[in-house]
Amino acid sequence: MSNFQPTKADKFTFGLWTVGWQGVDPFGTFIRPPLDPVEAVTRLAELGAAGVTFHDNDLIPFGAEPPERQRLIDRFRKALTETGMTTPMVTTNLFYHPVFKDGAFTSNDRGVRRAAIAKAMRGIDLGAELGASVYVFWGGREGLEAGAAKRAGDALERYREAIDFLCGYVREQDSVIRFAIEPKPNEPRGDIFLPTVGHALHFISMLEHPEMVGVNPEVAHETIAGLNFVHGVSQALWAGKLFHIDLNSQRIGRFDQDYRFGAEDLKEAFLLVHLLETSGYGGPRHFDAHAYRNEDAEGVWEFAAGCMRTYLALAAKSREFDASEEIQAARAAALVEGLAEPSVGTYSPEAASALLGEDHDLDRLAGRGYHNERLDQLVVDLLLGAR
Amino acid sequence: MSNFQPTKADKFTFGLWTVGWQGVDPFGTFIRPPLDPVEAVTRLAELGAAGVTFHDNDLIPFGAEPPERQRLIDRFRKALTETGMTTPMVTTNLFYHPVFKDGAFTSNDRGVRRAAIAKAMRGIDLGAELGASVYVFWGGREGLEAGAAKRAGDALERYREAIDFLCGYVREQDSVIRFAIEPKPNEPRGDIFLPTVGHALHFISMLEHPEMVGVNPEVAHETIAGLNFVHGVSQALWAGKLFHIDLNSQRIGRFDQDYRFGAEDLKEAFLLVHLLETSGYGGPRHFDAHAYRNEDAEGVWEFAAGCMRTYLALAAKSREFDASEEIQAARAAALVEGLAEPSVGTYSPEAASALLGEDHDLDRLAGRGYHNERLDQLVVDLLLGAR
Amino acid sequence: MSNFQPTKADKFTFGLWTVGWQGVDPFGTFIRPPLDPVEAVTRLAELGAAGVTFHDNDLIPFGAEPPERQRLIDRFRKALTETGMTTPMVTTNLFYHPVFKDGAFTSNDRGVRRAAIAKAMRGIDLGAELGASVYVFWGGREGLEAGAAKRAGDALERYREAIDFLCGYVREQDSVIRFAIEPKPNEPRGDIFLPTVGHALHFISMLEHPEMVGVNPEVAHETIAGLNFVHGVSQALWAGKLFHIDLNSQRIGRFDQDYRFGAEDLKEAFLLVHLLETSGYGGPRHFDAHAYRNEDAEGVWEFAAGCMRTYLALAAKSREFDASEEIQAARAAALVEGLAEPSVGTYSPEAASALLGEDHDLDRLAGRGYHNERLDQLVVDLLLGAR
Amino acid sequence: MSNFQPTKADKFTFGLWTVGWQGVDPFGTFIRPPLDPVEAVTRLAELGAAGVTFHDNDLIPFGAEPPERQRLIDRFRKALTETGMTTPMVTTNLFYHPVFKDGAFTSNDRGVRRAAIAKAMRGIDLGAELGASVYVFWGGREGLEAGAAKRAGDALERYREAIDFLCGYVREQDSVIRFAIEPKPNEPRGDIFLPTVGHALHFISMLEHPEMVGVNPEVAHETIAGLNFVHGVSQALWAGKLFHIDLNSQRIGRFDQDYRFGAEDLKEAFLLVHLLETSGYGGPRHFDAHAYRNEDAEGVWEFAAGCMRTYLALAAKSREFDASEEIQAARAAALVEGLAEPSVGTYSPEAASALLGEDHDLDRLAGRGYHNERLDQLVVDLLLGAR
Repeated sequence: MSNFQPTKADKFTFGLWTVGWQGVDPFGTFIRPPLDPVEAVTRLAELGAAGVTFHDNDLIPFGAEPPERQRLIDRFRKALTETGMTTPMVTTNLFYHPVFKDGAFTSNDRGVRRAAIAKAMRGIDLGAELGASVYVFWGGREGLEAGAAKRAGDALERYREAIDFLCGYVREQDSVIRFAIEPKPNEPRGDIFLPTVGHALHFISMLEHPEMVGVNPEVAHETIAGLNFVHGVSQALWAGKLFHIDLNSQRIGRFDQDYRFGAEDLKEAFLLVHLLETSGYGGPRHFDAHAYRNEDAEGVWEFAAGCMRTYLALAAKSREFDASEEIQAARAAALVEGLAEPSVGTYSPEAASALLGEDHDLDRLAGRGYHNERLDQLVVDLLLGAR
Repeated sequence: MSNFQPTKADKFTFGLWTVGWQGVDPFGTFIRPPLDPVEAVTRLAELGAAGVTFHDNDLIPFGAEPPERQRLIDRFRKALTETGMTTPMVTTNLFYHPVFKDGAFTSNDRGVRRAAIAKAMRGIDLGAELGASVYVFWGGREGLEAGAAKRAGDALERYREAIDFLCGYVREQDSVIRFAIEPKPNEPRGDIFLPTVGHALHFISMLEHPEMVGVNPEVAHETIAGLNFVHGVSQALWAGKLFHIDLNSQRIGRFDQDYRFGAEDLKEAFLLVHLLETSGYGGPRHFDAHAYRNEDAEGVWEFAAGCMRTYLALAAKSREFDASEEIQAARAAALVEGLAEPSVGTYSPEAASALLGEDHDLDRLAGRGYHNERLDQLVVDLLLGAR
Repeated sequence: MSNFQPTKADKFTFGLWTVGWQGVDPFGTFIRPPLDPVEAVTRLAELGAAGVTFHDNDLIPFGAEPPERQRLIDRFRKALTETGMTTPMVTTNLFYHPVFKDGAFTSNDRGVRRAAIAKAMRGIDLGAELGASVYVFWGGREGLEAGAAKRAGDALERYREAIDFLCGYVREQDSVIRFAIEPKPNEPRGDIFLPTVGHALHFISMLEHPEMVGVNPEVAHETIAGLNFVHGVSQALWAGKLFHIDLNSQRIGRFDQDYRFGAEDLKEAFLLVHLLETSGYGGPRHFDAHAYRNEDAEGVWEFAAGCMRTYLALAAKSREFDASEEIQAARAAALVEGLAEPSVGTYSPEAASALLGEDHDLDRLAGRGYHNERLDQLVVDLLLGAR
Repeated sequence: MSNFQPTKADKFTFGLWTVGWQGVDPFGTFIRPPLDPVEAVTRLAELGAAGVTFHDNDLIPFGAEPPERQRLIDRFRKALTETGMTTPMVTTNLFYHPVFKDGAFTSNDRGVRRAAIAKAMRGIDLGAELGASVYVFWGGREGLEAGAAKRAGDALERYREAIDFLCGYVREQDSVIRFAIEPKPNEPRGDIFLPTVGHALHFISMLEHPEMVGVNPEVAHETIAGLNFVHGVSQALWAGKLFHIDLNSQRIGRFDQDYRFGAEDLKEAFLLVHLLETSGYGGPRHFDAHAYRNEDAEGVWEFAAGCMRTYLALAAKSREFDASEEIQAARAAALVEGLAEPSVGTYSPEAASALLGEDHDLDRLAGRGYHNERLDQLVVDLLLGAR
């Protein structure tokens, strides 16, 4: 397997909670022992990862006293230093504790909302302390089951208030931290606010400091709703808002599966890798996934290695795609670059009247074929190595 | 049935294509005869509707010569005048003709894109001529099946170019027309650009004249992706962007069904009506639906009457909801109004340090129940009249 | 609320695990304290339920010694006696313990399979001891995530072997117990074997003693796959195989929500109640649902009362449906009873040649409308009390 | 592309309606000209297909007089003879004509049901005339939108009556024809009866001559409901009921897409090919798909070639899978063959008491890992050629 061996230059990162997932699900209990964050760092470094990410409580148990907190940070930082690993992203757990059962920033209880914002502030401090440049908000409990229980407009207002306040907090500290909102349509709530990349991007445009906030799209989350993930990421890139990304895999219309990257829908995984590799995105390739629940502790590292291996294999296919004359000819036949050309330019009365004066022979224009079957088949051939 | 008899004050409108749907589907041919737009106007007026809407080609067949065009407009306008009906919204058919098989504003063929923009300009003229104030863009063909065939970023760029150009055209004419973008996740394309209300709202924020453009959300379209429609509409209202709305019903994760309003998911239909009736939305209640395909021509009017009747029945329930002391007490127990209260206010160093200095006793806060079962049950009781 | 007060004659039952659900989900921990089975029996009896059901480990903790087991059974039985409650159904927990992470009857490890069958035998004994007449198999862990890890044909063979063996065990004991298989498409496994009512019914037809085995369809499970639950139950009834039923509610294409009966899709809930009330089904109306996670301990009883209340309200609508002359006229116009009439009878050469000799004027037959809009609108009117 | 060139031995067949699809969809009209069945035969033969299949009206227009019918059959048969192509399967169009808008065998109108059965009899005659051995029933219109409009039990009864009658007809003629039922969950009807492979298999078990009837599963149809297609086919094979198969691709939870085989979900496509190639299934590999709608007439043949090419590429991977020592070792580590071993054998009191007497140490058994990550990654590596 020498070909697809990751190195730090590949910028692969994993959440501590991913390799550390103990397998609790709605119908079953823990199946793997707790994983020491230090071991996570060490093993991931050995496999070729560049960094780890974490929720506050992945590193520091809920309610730990300051000295214990410091001890845990110190030994974690030591492991990072020894392995050359980084922590480019951190986040705060605003979902596990029962207090968040009705939401964090959008709980109907103002006391909970204040507690949540304070917890996020401390999470930001922790991130700054460990050198993170991105802080992710996944509002998993920001939602509802009973439609009459919250006005969604109120919830959006509270969500905005929280993010604006936290932006103020970061700005005051002259921190490099930027925020990335991670949308999800449902689970654990019946419906979650900011359900898709689109809703999150729009929400950001309504903030006081939109320039500080981007998105952290996750393959599984858009896929739950059956949306095209590559298109969601493209819209974020188009707006300059792809601040981070969560890679995994998932089948449409199911519970949150968080499978190994590339385990489902290889064509979409390829198109995603091609997009990331050619778009100038320079951030981490972050895996937010976990090993199948029937794995033992060692299987977790097979899982982690597999995420990176498949990414690299697809990145190689991506370069092959761009280099292949046959594929480029098929792209030309499909007029792919034609879509990069302006249609009418900026409006002017002259442009308008010129356009209206043209003879648009629709029947003639309709005769063209777009040769998408051949192009798509060449993608399949490329993936299968069937050349 | 005297209680739920619509009047023009209810602002119910129907697309000509809805009552005029002839039942072609992917597996079967026409099952109802063509419906004369004048008959549509007359029958809908008799049933209590306030107006009709149309695509250019619903009124004027593709390729009609100017005199024929004028004749058709004249007799249509005469029917409107005689019945007191209005045409608050118009749109352009950019999907039926084979020329649009690869898209309209985002076809890979620049000639098609130019033809589409010109057709939209003429559609806008027709709308202005008939007094429309909203012009809808439903980009049904703006998408793809083969992921490699279009870069989505290019598509968004072309989409923006087209809308910016058309905004320029409207501004030049001192028209009252505003645009409303109608998102849809898929069908007829495998994936459609601007798949949800969120993506469309964000797209609007990227335009040259965002103030001229809002959204036209459709129940069925968000529901195909399993998204909460009430939340989508709420986000649009929150942003001041609900310019129009398409009412119908649909089951999640299926082909586009466009059923009679209220035929599916009565609780969500109720929550939607409650939102519209209490949010200050003053626009049309527009039905974009059609009669079941096994209806004959007369059944179409049962369908149309049913859409309005169910809306009115739910609007009555909505008033009952607001008037019921029992329900208001349940809302109070669920802290619904608590979410309207600011959590922390605007950021200041003082506010931040006050917040961090508070003792947030999470375990105590976690003890509260939110009484959502009782509130939701009261909604069900209200709907069923089970009091 | 005097009208919809349940009594034991209504045969409402609840799983101990439903009111006892403590709210663990993939992203959060316990939010409600454990519920003593005796309290569950008492409270449910007060609310009007007729019985409870349970998994072995709902009553008897995993690994309890025989004396403790007996003590727990005795006090539980005492509570039943004092309240007049019954335990018509029992089942075995073959999913919570880590040993079942790869399946129970279909684990790839033969040792696990044997342990699972032995545990089911003891569960059957416990059921017999407490007078249950139905024993349910929900094979939540019988499935896979990695398609290459099991041949589905092997899995079906092992599943059949287990059920055949357990049928043998029951037959030997002259027990009245019959088995009911509960299908589910996915969650907690990526894909579960016997994913729908149809697959389970077919599986039963392949058993050694098909007469001993029926199905236990659950609203949420068929709905996850977007299937029509009423049709699934109808197919089971058609085959004489509706041995038990799990009532709750759920949105299509999501994680398993197990909401209060009637909380979602009131029209389908009505059609289901109408089917159960008119089909001769005499078994329990069993609720397999739980209170929203943001409820406190008292909210659980609101939830339980709501399940029964909505069922009774819909049962009243069901009687109204059958009694309404207007609705019966609409049914006649839709030719509903026409479908109960034989089309051609049993095959004979004479019948065949008579049929082929007829003049089937398709165009004339095509002219008929089926008046489904009116019928469906009357159902909506009935539900909303909009008459 | 010399490697994956199909030959008649590969048994690839196409429906005339697949390559002949003219692109009508709910929002657009014809985009490709009609295709002469003779040209379809010739072109497909050149590409390496072994046969074609058809609905009666694909070959013989609705209402054609006997001489015209004969002429069309003769020239079609001539094309078959000249090319060595076969027609292993035929079916009857019971969905396109308006008469079937409420169903065919389950229309509420008895006259329609009789007409449908007669049309099927004539379709069977046509199939026999052309040497078909399988006759498919796809009941696309057998369903409903308004739940109160049909009792599903009545519908199943009428469905059974029709199939029993047609079995009688075939038996009388000493024909080799066997029936294959093709399930689908929805589209064009809101809900279709016999929605999945499971429901159809169970229905067959209720027939008078179950031995004459099997299933024709279609990738797209099970996938619409998000079911695991390989498991559905496996259950059919397990029951000896895989009489035919429809290959294509589709995304979950969407309108019926009928994409080129392998265009979506390559891993599932691989697992399916592996199953078909190793299960002893000897029937046609039948493609029921169509070219993307933005293709011109020539693109159709790219599409057809692609279906076969991808199948052959995956069949080669399938052989590689079975030959690879690394993969077979990973299968052994995952205990795949362990599932083929009986768990407990046939019931006997002795076997029962031996089993109950064993010490099942669940905690020890729970310690095992199933190594599914490695096995699944090897499948991905195999598909990508990343070895």
